[in-house]
Amino acid sequence: MRWCTIGLVVSIIVSHVTCVRYEPNWASIDSRPLPGWYDDVKLGIFIHWGVFSVPSYSPKLIEEWFWWWWKGKKLQPYIDYMNQNYKPGFTYADFGPQLTAEFFDANHWAEVFKSSGAEYVVFTAKHHEGYTNWPSKYSFNWNSMAVGPHKDIVGELAAAIKMNTSLHFGLYHSLFEWFNPLYLQDKANNFTTSDFVDRKTLPELYELINTYQPEVIWSDGDWEANSSYWKSTEFLAWLYNDSPVKDTVVTNDRWGKDSTCHHGGYLTCQDYYQPGKLQKRKWENAMTIDGHSWGFRRNAKLSDYLSIHTLISTFVETVSCGGNMLMNVGPTKEGFINPIFEERFKQFGEWMEVNSAAIRGTRPWKAQNDTINSNVWYTMKGSDVYAIVLEWPQGDTLTLGSPIPSTSTTINLLGYPDQFQYTTRPSGGIDIKIPPIPANKMPCQWVWSFLLSGLTN
Amino acid sequence: MRWCTIGLVVSIIVSHVTCVRYEPNWASIDSRPLPGWYDDVKLGIFIHWGVFSVPSYSPKLIEEWFWWWWKGKKLQPYIDYMNQNYKPGFTYADFGPQLTAEFFDANHWAEVFKSSGAEYVVFTAKHHEGYTNWPSKYSFNWNSMAVGPHKDIVGELAAAIKMNTSLHFGLYHSLFEWFNPLYLQDKANNFTTSDFVDRKTLPELYELINTYQPEVIWSDGDWEANSSYWKSTEFLAWLYNDSPVKDTVVTNDRWGKDSTCHHGGYLTCQDYYQPGKLQKRKWENAMTIDGHSWGFRRNAKLSDYLSIHTLISTFVETVSCGGNMLMNVGPTKEGFINPIFEERFKQFGEWMEVNSAAIRGTRPWKAQNDTINSNVWYTMKGSDVYAIVLEWPQGDTLTLGSPIPSTSTTINLLGYPDQFQYTTRPSGGIDIKIPPIPANKMPCQWVWSFLLSGLTN
Amino acid sequence: MRWCTIGLVVSIIVSHVTCVRYEPNWASIDSRPLPGWYDDVKLGIFIHWGVFSVPSYSPKLIEEWFWWWWKGKKLQPYIDYMNQNYKPGFTYADFGPQLTAEFFDANHWAEVFKSSGAEYVVFTAKHHEGYTNWPSKYSFNWNSMAVGPHKDIVGELAAAIKMNTSLHFGLYHSLFEWFNPLYLQDKANNFTTSDFVDRKTLPELYELINTYQPEVIWSDGDWEANSSYWKSTEFLAWLYNDSPVKDTVVTNDRWGKDSTCHHGGYLTCQDYYQPGKLQKRKWENAMTIDGHSWGFRRNAKLSDYLSIHTLISTFVETVSCGGNMLMNVGPTKEGFINPIFEERFKQFGEWMEVNSAAIRGTRPWKAQNDTINSNVWYTMKGSDVYAIVLEWPQGDTLTLGSPIPSTSTTINLLGYPDQFQYTTRPSGGIDIKIPPIPANKMPCQWVWSFLLSGLTN
Amino acid sequence: MRWCTIGLVVSIIVSHVTCVRYEPNWASIDSRPLPGWYDDVKLGIFIHWGVFSVPSYSPKLIEEWFWWWWKGKKLQPYIDYMNQNYKPGFTYADFGPQLTAEFFDANHWAEVFKSSGAEYVVFTAKHHEGYTNWPSKYSFNWNSMAVGPHKDIVGELAAAIKMNTSLHFGLYHSLFEWFNPLYLQDKANNFTTSDFVDRKTLPELYELINTYQPEVIWSDGDWEANSSYWKSTEFLAWLYNDSPVKDTVVTNDRWGKDSTCHHGGYLTCQDYYQPGKLQKRKWENAMTIDGHSWGFRRNAKLSDYLSIHTLISTFVETVSCGGNMLMNVGPTKEGFINPIFEERFKQFGEWMEVNSAAIRGTRPWKAQNDTINSNVWYTMKGSDVYAIVLEWPQGDTLTLGSPIPSTSTTINLLGYPDQFQYTTRPSGGIDIKIPPIPANKMPCQWVWSFLLSGLTN
Repeated sequence: MRWCTIGLVVSIIVSHVTCVRYEPNWASIDSRPLPGWYDDVKLGIFIHWGVFSVPSYSPKLIEEWFWWWWKGKKLQPYIDYMNQNYKPGFTYADFGPQLTAEFFDANHWAEVFKSSGAEYVVFTAKHHEGYTNWPSKYSFNWNSMAVGPHKDIVGELAAAIKMNTSLHFGLYHSLFEWFNPLYLQDKANNFTTSDFVDRKTLPELYELINTYQPEVIWSDGDWEANSSYWKSTEFLAWLYNDSPVKDTVVTNDRWGKDSTCHHGGYLTCQDYYQPGKLQKRKWENAMTIDGHSWGFRRNAKLSDYLSIHTLISTFVETVSCGGNMLMNVGPTKEGFINPIFEERFKQFGEWMEVNSAAIRGTRPWKAQNDTINSNVWYTMKGSDVYAIVLEWPQGDTLTLGSPIPSTSTTINLLGYPDQFQYTTRPSGGIDIKIPPIPANKMPCQWVWSFLLSGLTN
Repeated sequence: MRWCTIGLVVSIIVSHVTCVRYEPNWASIDSRPLPGWYDDVKLGIFIHWGVFSVPSYSPKLIEEWFWWWWKGKKLQPYIDYMNQNYKPGFTYADFGPQLTAEFFDANHWAEVFKSSGAEYVVFTAKHHEGYTNWPSKYSFNWNSMAVGPHKDIVGELAAAIKMNTSLHFGLYHSLFEWFNPLYLQDKANNFTTSDFVDRKTLPELYELINTYQPEVIWSDGDWEANSSYWKSTEFLAWLYNDSPVKDTVVTNDRWGKDSTCHHGGYLTCQDYYQPGKLQKRKWENAMTIDGHSWGFRRNAKLSDYLSIHTLISTFVETVSCGGNMLMNVGPTKEGFINPIFEERFKQFGEWMEVNSAAIRGTRPWKAQNDTINSNVWYTMKGSDVYAIVLEWPQGDTLTLGSPIPSTSTTINLLGYPDQFQYTTRPSGGIDIKIPPIPANKMPCQWVWSFLLSGLTN
Repeated sequence: MRWCTIGLVVSIIVSHVTCVRYEPNWASIDSRPLPGWYDDVKLGIFIHWGVFSVPSYSPKLIEEWFWWWWKGKKLQPYIDYMNQNYKPGFTYADFGPQLTAEFFDANHWAEVFKSSGAEYVVFTAKHHEGYTNWPSKYSFNWNSMAVGPHKDIVGELAAAIKMNTSLHFGLYHSLFEWFNPLYLQDKANNFTTSDFVDRKTLPELYELINTYQPEVIWSDGDWEANSSYWKSTEFLAWLYNDSPVKDTVVTNDRWGKDSTCHHGGYLTCQDYYQPGKLQKRKWENAMTIDGHSWGFRRNAKLSDYLSIHTLISTFVETVSCGGNMLMNVGPTKEGFINPIFEERFKQFGEWMEVNSAAIRGTRPWKAQNDTINSNVWYTMKGSDVYAIVLEWPQGDTLTLGSPIPSTSTTINLLGYPDQFQYTTRPSGGIDIKIPPIPANKMPCQWVWSFLLSGLTN
Repeated sequence: MRWCTIGLVVSIIVSHVTCVRYEPNWASIDSRPLPGWYDDVKLGIFIHWGVFSVPSYSPKLIEEWFWWWWKGKKLQPYIDYMNQNYKPGFTYADFGPQLTAEFFDANHWAEVFKSSGAEYVVFTAKHHEGYTNWPSKYSFNWNSMAVGPHKDIVGELAAAIKMNTSLHFGLYHSLFEWFNPLYLQDKANNFTTSDFVDRKTLPELYELINTYQPEVIWSDGDWEANSSYWKSTEFLAWLYNDSPVKDTVVTNDRWGKDSTCHHGGYLTCQDYYQPGKLQKRKWENAMTIDGHSWGFRRNAKLSDYLSIHTLISTFVETVSCGGNMLMNVGPTKEGFINPIFEERFKQFGEWMEVNSAAIRGTRPWKAQNDTINSNVWYTMKGSDVYAIVLEWPQGDTLTLGSPIPSTSTTINLLGYPDQFQYTTRPSGGIDIKIPPIPANKMPCQWVWSFLLSGLTN
């Protein structure tokens, strides 16, 4: 990292904004502070959509990997599905024209995402299949303008999000493409050549960022090669130094097999990452509402979808341990959001309406999971501590082990008018007295937040 | 009606089962007692599925009428949709091969329907489009075996329902077909000819009943002609006298424009029929979960679907007034039930699990809607009265105007262990004392049933 | 047959035109004289087109029987073709929407047919598949208006032929339909029931004739049942007595397995019927340009098509023996005539241009095939005899065995200016002196007609 | 050009074969002698096949430019065709999966081409649409393995031609791609950038040649830029110096707008190039059997196809003036050769059977078109001269102005046993006596070759 050397302390502060330049090495890249908005917002919506949304079928495995299960791994259920429903010789590329998107309405998507209480979205600009959801110059006749929707999906969504909501707009991008022959050639050369990176990956990334100015770059598909093959630090140095989003963009860690869980922006480590304890760096739990898939599965039954209780519980644990949650929806090939997702978003939004004080802008407290009641997770904002309970207490007392009340401690249930009584437990912790609140007086369902003010520490 | 004349009272009772023969006139047909099972079961599932499930699109109007809106009424939104999404000249018949049904699993349907607590199903064997969901001899190359699914959908569903559940199996059948040229010819002749009835309607009805032995015949599409054109009484006389389901079959009233709401089996009068007061004859409220359509609409948003609270409230009012409710689901062209329907069924089933005593086998009480609390509807079973409340009382008293307690009156909430206190209101009625039951002690959500035993009348 | 009995000889002659009424029995039906135009015209064009034009594939057998080879006979090559090129479960009816007919231009067809020198056409209104090429009231959603072309093909062709040419317009109609369940039921009943005939066959035939007024009814598909099942004589009595084409219509003999080659109008006996000698009744050789098929085969190679020499030779033999030739073309599913057919038609027309005097309006002579030169066939018109030679003489003499010259006999080659020298053969017959005519002086190619005037008999 | 300097004269001759190295400039490239086989063979078959074979429709203009007429020029008839036959928004790329090639049989193609008497073929490896008929590494999901045929069409055809015939195998390749965004970007930059050439054109060309080793590279699509943009001389230097076909490959002249008709291998100048007089350099007349198109047109009528007389006449003129003729066929999207093409090939082959001595291995004579009889064109082989006549003489004398007979001159008609009489014309030239040869003694049809041996010069 180079620092401007114009002298004074004041100039150094200015330099942080305008003059720091990151070098193309991990030490320098990692030294960049994560733009602040990201840690505040906690909840994002992940959207998986692409040509895989056409077969939209997977008996059990993640659906967006359809091509790989079928033609890479050659798994029998996928071969059988194709044999039974398509003419012989049908290829994955032949799915392209069926990605019709006739009901795609970016403004409706934006509205639905917003209804969940989320504050950022990450959309699959390009998944491992290599199909670009924008008219890339580097993906001739394998992009959403030429084949299928005949629309710039990324562009329409970016505009709708930016103009009609205050959500941050982000893009997912796969570095590798399973079956791109240029990639396969580099791979066969043990990644000593980089035709694919030079001709496809990097040109596309620059094009994406310059065109759509996303505030999240969610990189993926990195794991077969090192970041040196992907030229990741070079790209990130540009992104952080010179790109149009250099001041606000956040990225994740999937920039090479040496990078994941170690370098880059926030850590994702692995899908459904939920460490269960406080992490040193900002991290994200990318997870799905359909418990089995990121891409929409036409064959998903109700039992495959997570309940709202599970979703919120997962979220609370994630936030308590310093993570954000990126909750995934897979729209249909028509470009429509199945109402079951909308129902979960709406339920999530109803909960956030009441509980956002315990979530938004919070930081991890000294404790995460309560020492006595494992159904309770903590967050903190200033001197306020929030104890978020995943199950309503069975009896008339909620016992917590971690908080030490002071004389000025007050306890409230978010959304409920009256203060709660409590007693300090001799052996440490607190017993909160739970009155018999009738169902129709409860402020929310599923999960509840107690605000503990004036604790001793 | 002819009665056997074998003498004794005993023989007359026997004759009721074996020897009553109905004549082909409404007086005789109407004299047949409705088989008892129907009044007991209260809740049925209506399933609309056919070639209309392919376009599966309707901006607002009922979707299964797509063909009519498009080519009969020539409504602009439908014309526009076709112009924008199909090649010019595309006809409704061209949709046929796209009715793929690749995910149709009759056993899964049966399971999902059962989960709702319903006890009968009615499936569209043939809607106004004329396409038969069974391989009819009278619908060459316009049936589900020849075009589309290549399956006997009616047959598979009948088998699954009959073998794996205790639900009663019923079939919907449209007498007329919008665009059948034989029908149009009879109509042009002011129904003085009956080629269509003789060549299509009646042969099909006989074929359906002899082949699948349904216990409900839900007739429809009758309204342009009188029952004499349809030869309805002749058909019903056969159905009641000689068909394989003569002892158990129930039918509705849509057998001619002179018949609807007057003759036949139970009354349906009109779609979404909800008279709000007790009816003299058994009736049925046929209604939909998607508030705008019977056929599945790919473009239906969450806000289009009725909430579970609305569904149960509607049901309770219907049952209280002596009706059954036939709640509709529209599966997709793949033959799959969207999880949003499954969610509503599951919620309904959870409610029925607790409240079935207040529903199943009940009869209307003297009062239907409470005189003081319009959120309360009554049912009765023997001497027990059920007061079903659509909103949990705001305060600590539930005031009811209709019941007159005796000294032996007891009051319980279904699913809750403790008896409730009450006081007799001087001006009539009763004040039930509602204790503050915590949310996690409530027996169910949405709507609650109070059992009032030992009332004075 | 009933005769009017209004007295005088004159009235009897009139009665032949206006008052003869045919009875529904073969003796009466067969007594009707064949309308004169038919024997004069000699050459007709047969057109096979229908849903079978979609697969348009047959490794060897006649293509228009595709459905039967595939699903009736279950022949492996057809099963294989479907397995390799269509999704599993694809049915024959699913082909319907692909019968696009986007290049169908009835006027162009008319022009092409006319260019061949033919004077009538016979078009498949309905083949054994049951699909009607007109919007039949009796074939709901299995006709050319509802499925595929979205046009009244029969109607457009009838109009083009009648308005823009002097050709006679005729229709082929199959009595049976391989897979129509009503037919299969009658067949299972050993044809003791006739639902299919009453509901489908006869209504369609009446509709066809009343609507399009064809002058040829080319019946087919009769062979599994007797004419009594088909009610053929009843239909023919109406056709001959009361139909709008009663005075000019001709029919063939395929009206029941007791009828073919025995009753009806002219005889066809079997496909490619070429008896090689004079027949007592007027007959027709229905044959194909693609030597293997009536329906178009996309996989037909040049070697599958008959050469123009073979076509004309076959024609000459047919005419000489008293037949007409009905030469078949199979247009593509786009409704287009492959140029290879057009080439043959054009060649045929060039030949007819020169040789029509030897064909049109002729009658069989006393001899058909010459007794010495088997490459020569005769026709006759008045006292003129035509010797038509299929191969140009190798030497300078054409020896014929059958003609006996008189002193006034003259010999000409049609299209050539000079008379030919000849000598009477002592043992009977004639030796015609053939001068060395250079190629560019020959009047035509392939086959040549010598006019022999003034023979002794 | 660098010469090896190993000393002796002998080594210099050897060096011509093994050590000459061409430099990447036109002077050096042009100095390479054309491999001898090409001038000998005279007749080639051009094959246009690609995604354009799917629409296969053009009212009048060349069909393979469909995309350009539709989306580039926006010509109304093409817009109309799409509007009438496809759903709105259908793109050119959407045609891809319909290029089914189910009847593609490379061996049958090889056989048909051979039947014409041609000795080389040139197949469109890639046309201006950019779709590669081989699985190019540089055309991910826009190639014949991924989309449509699911076959390596180039590979199968190369194998069939090389293994089953003695024809030379060649490939057509378009330098530019109308709508490739990389190309459009270079073009917008006035060809000052060359991303497209570096990433697409050249990698593909190398891949093609290394993989399939074609003996003709028929370059096209060069005209918007100079050869310096295309890096043509660099490529050709490699092709001539180091490629696996360096000794036998021939190329044409379409390597840049400065190159066409000036540089490269043989000259093509423009489509249908027929200069009508002797050219200094070897050239080729690329022309079509369908007079209006290179790509197959489903709507082409017989009158659109050139007659065999026109084809042979064109060929004779071409050969006489020193050219080769490359005669084009457009197979169908099914990969089948329409029998009308087969008929022309067969006719051509019949003619070549008799006349090949006047064609194969000949060189232009001193005269091309006869000075008196414009229907006569000359070729020469050694001291033999061939006068090829396009119309059979009307009278008994064929008068030629160019040949001067000697006393030893003999005259024969190829395929005819007898010598012809002649007289020397006083004013120069010769009168050949034409005997009256009967049609069935003529050696061939359409065009005839007279061998004049022993002329004075």
